[in-house]
Amino acid sequence: MKHELSLPEVLSQIEKTVKPQFGKGQVADYIPELASVDPKKFGMAVRTVNGQEYVVGDGDEPFSAQSITKLFALGIALNRIGDEVWTRVGKEPSGTPFNYLSQLEHEAGFPRNPFINAGALAVVDMLLKGTRRPDLTVRDYMGFLCQSALTIDEAVARSEIDTAHKNRAIANLMKGAGTLHHEVEAVIAAYCRQCAITLSCRDLARAALPLAAGGFSPVIEETVFPTRQARRLNALLLTCGVYDSVGSFAYRVGLPAKSGVGGGIVAIVPGQAAIAVWSPELDRHGTSVVGFAALEAFSQITNCSVL
Amino acid sequence: MKHELSLPEVLSQIEKTVKPQFGKGQVADYIPELASVDPKKFGMAVRTVNGQEYVVGDGDEPFSAQSITKLFALGIALNRIGDEVWTRVGKEPSGTPFNYLSQLEHEAGFPRNPFINAGALAVVDMLLKGTRRPDLTVRDYMGFLCQSALTIDEAVARSEIDTAHKNRAIANLMKGAGTLHHEVEAVIAAYCRQCAITLSCRDLARAALPLAAGGFSPVIEETVFPTRQARRLNALLLTCGVYDSVGSFAYRVGLPAKSGVGGGIVAIVPGQAAIAVWSPELDRHGTSVVGFAALEAFSQITNCSVL
Amino acid sequence: MKHELSLPEVLSQIEKTVKPQFGKGQVADYIPELASVDPKKFGMAVRTVNGQEYVVGDGDEPFSAQSITKLFALGIALNRIGDEVWTRVGKEPSGTPFNYLSQLEHEAGFPRNPFINAGALAVVDMLLKGTRRPDLTVRDYMGFLCQSALTIDEAVARSEIDTAHKNRAIANLMKGAGTLHHEVEAVIAAYCRQCAITLSCRDLARAALPLAAGGFSPVIEETVFPTRQARRLNALLLTCGVYDSVGSFAYRVGLPAKSGVGGGIVAIVPGQAAIAVWSPELDRHGTSVVGFAALEAFSQITNCSVL
Amino acid sequence: MKHELSLPEVLSQIEKTVKPQFGKGQVADYIPELASVDPKKFGMAVRTVNGQEYVVGDGDEPFSAQSITKLFALGIALNRIGDEVWTRVGKEPSGTPFNYLSQLEHEAGFPRNPFINAGALAVVDMLLKGTRRPDLTVRDYMGFLCQSALTIDEAVARSEIDTAHKNRAIANLMKGAGTLHHEVEAVIAAYCRQCAITLSCRDLARAALPLAAGGFSPVIEETVFPTRQARRLNALLLTCGVYDSVGSFAYRVGLPAKSGVGGGIVAIVPGQAAIAVWSPELDRHGTSVVGFAALEAFSQITNCSVL
Repeated sequence: MKHELSLPEVLSQIEKTVKPQFGKGQVADYIPELASVDPKKFGMAVRTVNGQEYVVGDGDEPFSAQSITKLFALGIALNRIGDEVWTRVGKEPSGTPFNYLSQLEHEAGFPRNPFINAGALAVVDMLLKGTRRPDLTVRDYMGFLCQSALTIDEAVARSEIDTAHKNRAIANLMKGAGTLHHEVEAVIAAYCRQCAITLSCRDLARAALPLAAGGFSPVIEETVFPTRQARRLNALLLTCGVYDSVGSFAYRVGLPAKSGVGGGIVAIVPGQAAIAVWSPELDRHGTSVVGFAALEAFSQITNCSVL
Repeated sequence: MKHELSLPEVLSQIEKTVKPQFGKGQVADYIPELASVDPKKFGMAVRTVNGQEYVVGDGDEPFSAQSITKLFALGIALNRIGDEVWTRVGKEPSGTPFNYLSQLEHEAGFPRNPFINAGALAVVDMLLKGTRRPDLTVRDYMGFLCQSALTIDEAVARSEIDTAHKNRAIANLMKGAGTLHHEVEAVIAAYCRQCAITLSCRDLARAALPLAAGGFSPVIEETVFPTRQARRLNALLLTCGVYDSVGSFAYRVGLPAKSGVGGGIVAIVPGQAAIAVWSPELDRHGTSVVGFAALEAFSQITNCSVL
Repeated sequence: MKHELSLPEVLSQIEKTVKPQFGKGQVADYIPELASVDPKKFGMAVRTVNGQEYVVGDGDEPFSAQSITKLFALGIALNRIGDEVWTRVGKEPSGTPFNYLSQLEHEAGFPRNPFINAGALAVVDMLLKGTRRPDLTVRDYMGFLCQSALTIDEAVARSEIDTAHKNRAIANLMKGAGTLHHEVEAVIAAYCRQCAITLSCRDLARAALPLAAGGFSPVIEETVFPTRQARRLNALLLTCGVYDSVGSFAYRVGLPAKSGVGGGIVAIVPGQAAIAVWSPELDRHGTSVVGFAALEAFSQITNCSVL
Repeated sequence: MKHELSLPEVLSQIEKTVKPQFGKGQVADYIPELASVDPKKFGMAVRTVNGQEYVVGDGDEPFSAQSITKLFALGIALNRIGDEVWTRVGKEPSGTPFNYLSQLEHEAGFPRNPFINAGALAVVDMLLKGTRRPDLTVRDYMGFLCQSALTIDEAVARSEIDTAHKNRAIANLMKGAGTLHHEVEAVIAAYCRQCAITLSCRDLARAALPLAAGGFSPVIEETVFPTRQARRLNALLLTCGVYDSVGSFAYRVGLPAKSGVGGGIVAIVPGQAAIAVWSPELDRHGTSVVGFAALEAFSQITNCSVL
């Protein structure tokens, strides 16, 4: 990151400049509980590998992590069973929406990558081998990484479980194909509860920091996974992390990142920092409009694209 | 039907000639309970509109009706809500296997026709409006038409409910798309139980006879649906009734027909007769190999193709 | 056909009643030359197996046969190489639009049936084996059957050859897959010229009459193909003849038929008559709106559905 | 790049270690002329932004650039018409093979990205606006960047033009959809001739160097495109550059790269170097097996992944 402004100045400037983007997207409405969030929220946090931490706007307000949790669930699975993960899920961008069934049907129930819903369900299925409540495992792992007691929003979890028809379709397709080992409802419940984990931008930037620091967490001063795994997770994020706008995101931002329909996005500047941003209005691909714009501005101002 | 042989002679001849077809197909194995049926079974029954009835082989032994029940469930739905049925299901051949998801996803959860699984689930959903046990309604309607007390094979029903992952995927896809109104599990249970209705070839030929007699049942001496509906159901059978081998079936047999993975097929000779045949070995499309051959022989010998 | 009105009365009544359907469809515009035809044209002709012939409206005016020629080209191929035809093209409805590429790509370039464009191109490719101008062969065969000197509309042919991009895509896909043996441009040219054959409803009803008479032509008093082939062609027409509205057509009309984007439809009443109708406005599937309605009326009034 | 070995030592070590990979892939056989190349060839070249250049093995032997030329053709188009390029082609990974038709059909002939064949044909179509021989423009631009007189292999070009059926299908689909403006044959000829440009690894590393140096070419000491464009092209390469194994490539190598079925791959280490590798045996996705392994080794030894 080479830039004339200090990080607080950068964040402050971004906070001002993204305002015109409000109103261009829509708050997720397919999960009823999420639809009630204030669309004008905006928070951002940066945590550097050498200990700096800056937060602006609503960056300390908890929001629904949703698909961002897929990154941490995958991390746990890799820690536990290593490359065996890749016998159950691929590493390629899907080129299709995150909840698309047809590709999964044509590919015998084998999910393209761990960040589309099918892949995330496969990861939950892997975690169910060791525990009946993998959602708590993910919550506690994320909480451990950011040193904060995270909670699962039970109303959101319930709302998702009640309306997860498309995910149930995906899970049943996989169950029929033999690529899901546990009961569909157990997988769906754990998945929906995992998605309902809430945390703030500050929490998220801290939790993701090991990806920027070769697997070491400056927050807890501990190595949490091998350097090689950090690099590989970043590669997966860059090619598969932002639903079906992964190409545009790399083009405009140039950082590994994971987005969620709660409006959060976490991005990694390898070797330097983790950035979290939150704003609930989504584009038609399910990514935060204002969050995307804020990260694009950050990348341009600080010249931190990996490319 | 113009032919030199008498009907009993025709059936007797067919019974002999189809023997070499045994071993060319496979008994349905995706429903565990069905896998245990004797693959060498063969039965056939003809019931004419003017009261003749001939049965050969295992034509009085009950078998699992499976998809053949879709025809009678549709009949009940048409009797109840008329053309409103067509606001919830199409009338076109799908060109794809009976449990295919991708087409349904691309067409917003609207099933192509009432004989693929998605369409049959929609019909069950329609029937659920008036009763909690539409499977009993279908069983009783079929029993009424053939004047026989039909049963639901509970072991088969249970087996299907336990393994209906693909159908649950279909139902959940439709639920998410808003094209299924009742609870997925209620629809699945009713559907699987309906499929587990058992009846003999004799029963089936009797039950289907109104389709050959313009809606009048010579068995119960009563008009059960309008002539126009008989003609239309026959049209649906001819274009959509035999899974994705409807073209080959019309080409080789030339009669409206409905097949089931239990190995049964019922065919209609409009104005003349209903024919039921049963033999458990299936081709890769899910149609009885020997049943198909028997109907082809019948059509050739009696010259009864509608075309 | 059981009806109280005489055939001339039936046709006269239909001619009056279909008028309100004008304006509901659109003249084919993807072939520039066809776009200039008067959308209000309507002609109809019936030719019975026992020699009656009735024509109303514009039933003696030539129109562009288009896809209707596929039926006669297939007939020639069957006459020449018999069942070998079916090694190069299937017999199943496609469930997709007539010029759809994706299904063909997924099925290794093997066309579903001879009436979608891919299948018709395969038939042209078969005919190219014996002659460099199969379009003339088809023209002369159709002319022979109706005892009329038919012409190819060179302006339409040229217009189609110039704009046949989608058909060239199909043909090149097949060429790459090895399912087309001759040069793409030779196949495309012959196909477009074949489609540009013009004839009147009277001609068409005469030419198709052998399909209603078990392969015998009462017009030329000669058997032109075996009875079995007539029945099989009718089966193909019923399941594949009317593009992707074959199910609705069977449901509403109940007769084997072939439609063309020139606005013509020919329907067969096996054992009784051939009916030709022409009106240029098409529905979104490419079938004449008024022609469809006229045949539905004819089927209802004369009770001639095969079902 | 942090590593204990010198670059010549790194290359020398890689040259030894990749040998066991020979025999795992297959030389491209769909272009007859390419099938005759010696499968055991291996060359590699590194050119750093500060002037170092190292070449091993067959790194000075010319090979068929094939799809690698798509990168330079895109560069010319961006130089000429800027962001207007993105009105005619997307920036997202396709998730499908490079010559897949179905996605293009479903997306109205708009190509996903400039590196699948459809997108590259669109780029050729853009270049055809200013010249009748865009293949010469690309050849000369690449030659200018590497300061070498490059040639087009006429035998390969002819071979490709003769067998480009799938590409003609793609181009005709686009022509019909209106997303290709020039004549199909003109686009195909220019595309095939462009693909037939030959160059050595040394040439290729030099030609691609501006992508590693923010748009400046240390070879010709000139800025050839804006820094921003270099970053964006790298983003496109990382998400779309290696056919449908882009995810695995990022995971294992972590560098922007473009591969070609001639067996070449060029990879970019932003800020540091361009690396070219060539070995003709391909994996089933069309990428050089040994080249992929060599770049993976290079990335591991020098720790140069961008992630």
